[in-house]
Amino acid sequence: MSSDPTEPEAPLGRVAVLGLGVMGGSLCRALTDTGLAERVTGWSPEATERDAAVTARAVDFAAAEWRAAVQDADLVVLAVPLDAATRMLPEVAAVARGATLTDVASLKGPVADAAVRAGVESRWVGSHPMAGSEQRGFWASRSDLYQDARVWLCRAAHGDPIPPDASAARVTAMWRGVGAEPAWLSAPEHDRLMAVASHLPQLVSNTLALVMEDAGLSPDQLGPGGLDVTRLAASSPEMWRDLLVHADPALVAGLRDLARTAERLATHVDDGDVEAIERLMRRTRAWRRR
Amino acid sequence: MSSDPTEPEAPLGRVAVLGLGVMGGSLCRALTDTGLAERVTGWSPEATERDAAVTARAVDFAAAEWRAAVQDADLVVLAVPLDAATRMLPEVAAVARGATLTDVASLKGPVADAAVRAGVESRWVGSHPMAGSEQRGFWASRSDLYQDARVWLCRAAHGDPIPPDASAARVTAMWRGVGAEPAWLSAPEHDRLMAVASHLPQLVSNTLALVMEDAGLSPDQLGPGGLDVTRLAASSPEMWRDLLVHADPALVAGLRDLARTAERLATHVDDGDVEAIERLMRRTRAWRRR
Repeated sequence: MSSDPTEPEAPLGRVAVLGLGVMGGSLCRALTDTGLAERVTGWSPEATERDAAVTARAVDFAAAEWRAAVQDADLVVLAVPLDAATRMLPEVAAVARGATLTDVASLKGPVADAAVRAGVESRWVGSHPMAGSEQRGFWASRSDLYQDARVWLCRAAHGDPIPPDASAARVTAMWRGVGAEPAWLSAPEHDRLMAVASHLPQLVSNTLALVMEDAGLSPDQLGPGGLDVTRLAASSPEMWRDLLVHADPALVAGLRDLARTAERLATHVDDGDVEAIERLMRRTRAWRRR
Repeated sequence: MSSDPTEPEAPLGRVAVLGLGVMGGSLCRALTDTGLAERVTGWSPEATERDAAVTARAVDFAAAEWRAAVQDADLVVLAVPLDAATRMLPEVAAVARGATLTDVASLKGPVADAAVRAGVESRWVGSHPMAGSEQRGFWASRSDLYQDARVWLCRAAHGDPIPPDASAARVTAMWRGVGAEPAWLSAPEHDRLMAVASHLPQLVSNTLALVMEDAGLSPDQLGPGGLDVTRLAASSPEMWRDLLVHADPALVAGLRDLARTAERLATHVDDGDVEAIERLMRRTRAWRRR
């Protein structure tokens, strides 16, 4: 908590976090640690997760019904999978009247559309923190998950920029407060970027895991490199299914480009074309070290 | 150093490490830390690397000529790329008469063949530590690189098992001494396993990096997951070119399987086939968590 008497004690006001998995649970822990919120209320559909959050003192209160959690909230964070976020947003907006609304879904277009349909675009600010875990649930949450993480922020209007307002200021302050680095991008630009920057590496990791399993390999036969490349293969199917169905067409194009490129590398290896392989590896090393 | 008076002070004797990059440099640091060697002598073709190893006290002496480094050695470790290891092995064996010889190349068949051709199979034990770095040179070495790492060991004879001898005991003791977990496998079995467990994830990382660069993406736009999957794309082309040319045919088969699987996933995403995607992700999660 701030010890400077000129700063407000709890600038975020009363915060409600819906969903106490890795994303929501980590946010609760970080908010409670910093003392930026007047009160942190959490909700999860799972009683064991609510109990764990209370026991860990990640929340001041856990509510068995989300309606109770958002009552009187100044800021509501939907930390639930994409489809749940778009479904809950209008209902939450109707109960938490006047509250700033945000979410943490990895795609922003579908949530932006839901905000416009519900007529709450003026108090909705979409968030996508580029942080997470291949593990699931409150037990995998940690107070430093958002430290130094990029958080993409967007507004629902796809045209003219919306002037900064209290909602934008509050959501920005929350992410800065937990150590993250917020930046603005329009929802369509964000979703196109994520198709290649986030969804594609996810599916590449799944693809490699399928091939390894078919080859009779077990993960304990992998070294640190193989473990890194397949880490995302353990990610939550429940979270990803919604994202992949709504993914930008750039994802399909990226996967097909990947298939062609892998086929090309196979030919180089088969031909013993050392120069071609070395040239490609020099290119990727230069790119990756940028 | 051991304080038990019943144990030999330096059971490995005089050790020479040829190559002071990540692999050789880390081995020197760990050997010097443990005091298992009576003396650690290092050689690198690069003067700056030799100077850095001496300054870091990773070696007792650094030699400008490898011949000087292996003089009187009881154990010589070739920590150079695969082609250099097969080329140097007979020459090193001729100078370091009677010494146990090992190497750290990621493929064992070509080095085993070189040992047989040179007639030194009785004192050669191949090593492949599953540890490393996408970075290069002594500056990326660290004393704990081999901690808990699997190290595959093999002998040159592909048929009957060779009874344990002084060379096997010495190489095993060295890896155990630096915290690694040695295990035996025949060279052909090892190389077949590595095609899928190590070379394939390397090329998958390169493939994804090529696709991302073509899509105009920069690594600073990646989250932790994307960074993990592309980490190996920065690996040394100098080290990998030799390995890939001698790779087991299972690598080409694996790359082609990967291309087909990526194409299949592209079709599922394009069709919006959530069930198929979720089924695949459940399978890879179960496999990866094994």
